[in-house]
Amino acid sequence: MILRELAARLGCPVRGDDAVEVVRVAPIDHAGPGALTFVAGPKWASRLKTTRASAVIVAPSLETPLPSLLSDNPYLTFARALAVLQPPPVPPPGVHPSAVVHETAVLGEGVHVGPLAVVGARARVGARSVLRARVVVHEDVEVGEDSLLHSGVVVREGCRLGDRVIVQDGAVIGSDGFGFARDGEGRYHKIPQVGIVVIEDDVEIGALTAIDRAALGETRIGRGSKLDNLVQIGHSVTIGKDTVLAGQVGVAGSSRIGSRVTLAGQVGVAGHIEIGDGVVATAQTGIPSDVEPGTVVSGYPAIPNREWLKSSAVFPRLPELLKRLRALERRLPGSGEE
Amino acid sequence: MILRELAARLGCPVRGDDAVEVVRVAPIDHAGPGALTFVAGPKWASRLKTTRASAVIVAPSLETPLPSLLSDNPYLTFARALAVLQPPPVPPPGVHPSAVVHETAVLGEGVHVGPLAVVGARARVGARSVLRARVVVHEDVEVGEDSLLHSGVVVREGCRLGDRVIVQDGAVIGSDGFGFARDGEGRYHKIPQVGIVVIEDDVEIGALTAIDRAALGETRIGRGSKLDNLVQIGHSVTIGKDTVLAGQVGVAGSSRIGSRVTLAGQVGVAGHIEIGDGVVATAQTGIPSDVEPGTVVSGYPAIPNREWLKSSAVFPRLPELLKRLRALERRLPGSGEE
Amino acid sequence: MILRELAARLGCPVRGDDAVEVVRVAPIDHAGPGALTFVAGPKWASRLKTTRASAVIVAPSLETPLPSLLSDNPYLTFARALAVLQPPPVPPPGVHPSAVVHETAVLGEGVHVGPLAVVGARARVGARSVLRARVVVHEDVEVGEDSLLHSGVVVREGCRLGDRVIVQDGAVIGSDGFGFARDGEGRYHKIPQVGIVVIEDDVEIGALTAIDRAALGETRIGRGSKLDNLVQIGHSVTIGKDTVLAGQVGVAGSSRIGSRVTLAGQVGVAGHIEIGDGVVATAQTGIPSDVEPGTVVSGYPAIPNREWLKSSAVFPRLPELLKRLRALERRLPGSGEE
Repeated sequence: MILRELAARLGCPVRGDDAVEVVRVAPIDHAGPGALTFVAGPKWASRLKTTRASAVIVAPSLETPLPSLLSDNPYLTFARALAVLQPPPVPPPGVHPSAVVHETAVLGEGVHVGPLAVVGARARVGARSVLRARVVVHEDVEVGEDSLLHSGVVVREGCRLGDRVIVQDGAVIGSDGFGFARDGEGRYHKIPQVGIVVIEDDVEIGALTAIDRAALGETRIGRGSKLDNLVQIGHSVTIGKDTVLAGQVGVAGSSRIGSRVTLAGQVGVAGHIEIGDGVVATAQTGIPSDVEPGTVVSGYPAIPNREWLKSSAVFPRLPELLKRLRALERRLPGSGEE
Repeated sequence: MILRELAARLGCPVRGDDAVEVVRVAPIDHAGPGALTFVAGPKWASRLKTTRASAVIVAPSLETPLPSLLSDNPYLTFARALAVLQPPPVPPPGVHPSAVVHETAVLGEGVHVGPLAVVGARARVGARSVLRARVVVHEDVEVGEDSLLHSGVVVREGCRLGDRVIVQDGAVIGSDGFGFARDGEGRYHKIPQVGIVVIEDDVEIGALTAIDRAALGETRIGRGSKLDNLVQIGHSVTIGKDTVLAGQVGVAGSSRIGSRVTLAGQVGVAGHIEIGDGVVATAQTGIPSDVEPGTVVSGYPAIPNREWLKSSAVFPRLPELLKRLRALERRLPGSGEE
Repeated sequence: MILRELAARLGCPVRGDDAVEVVRVAPIDHAGPGALTFVAGPKWASRLKTTRASAVIVAPSLETPLPSLLSDNPYLTFARALAVLQPPPVPPPGVHPSAVVHETAVLGEGVHVGPLAVVGARARVGARSVLRARVVVHEDVEVGEDSLLHSGVVVREGCRLGDRVIVQDGAVIGSDGFGFARDGEGRYHKIPQVGIVVIEDDVEIGALTAIDRAALGETRIGRGSKLDNLVQIGHSVTIGKDTVLAGQVGVAGSSRIGSRVTLAGQVGVAGHIEIGDGVVATAQTGIPSDVEPGTVVSGYPAIPNREWLKSSAVFPRLPELLKRLRALERRLPGSGEE
């Protein structure tokens, strides 16, 4: 594609030769002729002198003799250019003959149902949505338009997915919540989980992530939120909009997570608590109780990140502290005891 | 259903109007006409004045003008009422034409085999058990009666499941244990894993949980134990009865976990150790060595919960401690060093 | 099998009666007549007096009247003896009639494709490789020779697996990496993930492990490395040779892990960092930054294991330390403040 044409598609101005051909996107150190690269931060700007890329996406303020797509957010423009130049394959409309689609299911226009997929009774799949190989969409499920369910995904009975939802391979949506009532002899009795899961528009769910249905009512993932792989969402959890949960995060039942929250890898959130809008928790943080909006927390139990950084820096010196304390005590006999 | 009829089914006395109609169960704040609600703790009792529920499950000592089902364990009675009023759908007996059942497999009376499920050679599935869509039960597996395997579950060759076992979607039972012998050059050689997994009666296994088969002998999950989603059980682990493992818990190979143990979310248990009956580990605890029965532990490495709570409260003050120590040292020159 | 015959197969000398019959391998405490057992460390040598095994694998220096296979690495010889005496079942060559194999896929000699497996367009599966029930190998995937993909494994488009690779049930190879660009309003836009995953020869991948494809380029798992269950590998990660990742380890995007590294259970590795050859991280360690080759690290943030052990031993005494500090301050009024 000619740079000028790409620029028109992306709505970005060009600086320099707009007739250069770009056929793919590549990182600045691996880009060769025909590649469009990008500079998302000052750290990479010096590489512009040596890159062999044919063109570059840069902020308008960055000078370079290379043909340039100008953007205030080069990283975002990179994402959009990649989608234009190297679009992921879209399976053609139609139902594979090996798929098992219930006669009462309703498939919208242009829907793709892959090999050995299953669509249950009264399920509804919106226009242009794709169910890849071996997906199971159970009875009474609703999937919106332009959604993409990768191989092996399971959506249990009655759950609802919005438009443009992407679910990576093997994820499970709507498994029973972990709810049991204990009797006098210490045995656990299952509480039927009769609620559902609602996934709003533009959500992405990672591979092998499990989202439990509510006991009563619903578990809800808000518009635009992104969940990575192997994440665990307990029953009746609600997650706000544009929130990001990294790999292996776990959220226990009935907790409420706000909008624009970021939980880094392996963070754990206790049940029945509230995490305010805009909270950030660094990796492996354990959150046992409510967190105020806008806070950055770390450690277990979670404390403000700044305090945690300072205390973590002292932690390796604890043996030395103890030794110094003892030295003081020897100077002041009778003040302490071992 | 008339309250009196439900009461008879549950074996509970009624107080007040026993002819009121109840058609569903709902939390006290969301209950409307026709709903049965429950008060499981004093925290919720005040809501009885404002609830719009038609009836309530309460302890006999709790006064209320609402028609009441009386129970010493309202939460357990709620679970049982829910199973009566809103029973989960039971797939009808029969083998879906798309399922692949080996000619030597034996299916009990009333068994359901869903679309695209696979039952291997010599596998046996007990009466009324349900294999939902895409379940794979490999050769020589035994599944007891009234068990329920949700979509996509895999049970590997030779493993045995008891009666009334429930396995949530995508769980894997009987994958190879993680066993390798290292040679003189640092390369790993696979140790064949020829043991099995045994799941006793009334166990529930969560979605996307993996339970490895033993190298030799068996991995065993005891009667009535409940495992949540994304749990990892290593080879040759044994778990006692009525034990609860929350989401993302990991147990390394050959460890023995007692009965009535509770491991909260993301707890890790090292290999070849023993955790006594009734132990409780709070979330994210890392357990490197044996734990005495009845202990409550926290932290990594795990210590008694009370000590951990106290030390965790001091942790954010470490920078301050260091400062105070320095101040003392300045008052007593020569006593310490930086 | 006669001991002498087994010895010849394994290339080990025999001491004592080489005509004894051995039919299986068993742990020393559970071994009966017909069993071959092994003594891999001094801890077990005393059991040789009471074992009922017919023969034993021992180091040459260990004296015992039992018929013995002599080996400098008894544990490795045990693994090899097990593979000879109790080989795992090998599914016969052929494509199950219920499998869906694209007409452009190429299957090598002796390949097994199990029930309801899917092989996509232009995929290539090398000689003698086995795809068990319900495996999905997408378009343009390459699988080498003698590899084994257990039930329900998904390999996404374009990924490449080497020879003798084993993938346990339900693992996902090549799911989209977790890459999003944020716009000015805090919304996330998907970055197409157009790279692949490369799994080199002799790698084993655990059940329900997820390995993300690169955004651009590749994610790579090096020759002979072993990943346990429920492991998360982010996009563009590279892992060296003979490295071991235990259950529930998570590695964030673009990090580089060396060869002969061991990450114990639930370890977390941040993105864009480098972990040198031979590093060991104990369970639950959180690694936020580069680690020098050969280091043993623990804790979060990770510090050298020896320091961590010492500081962890002081941690439970923090309340006592604070008390002793206060006592000193009372002796030296004015030196500190609460």
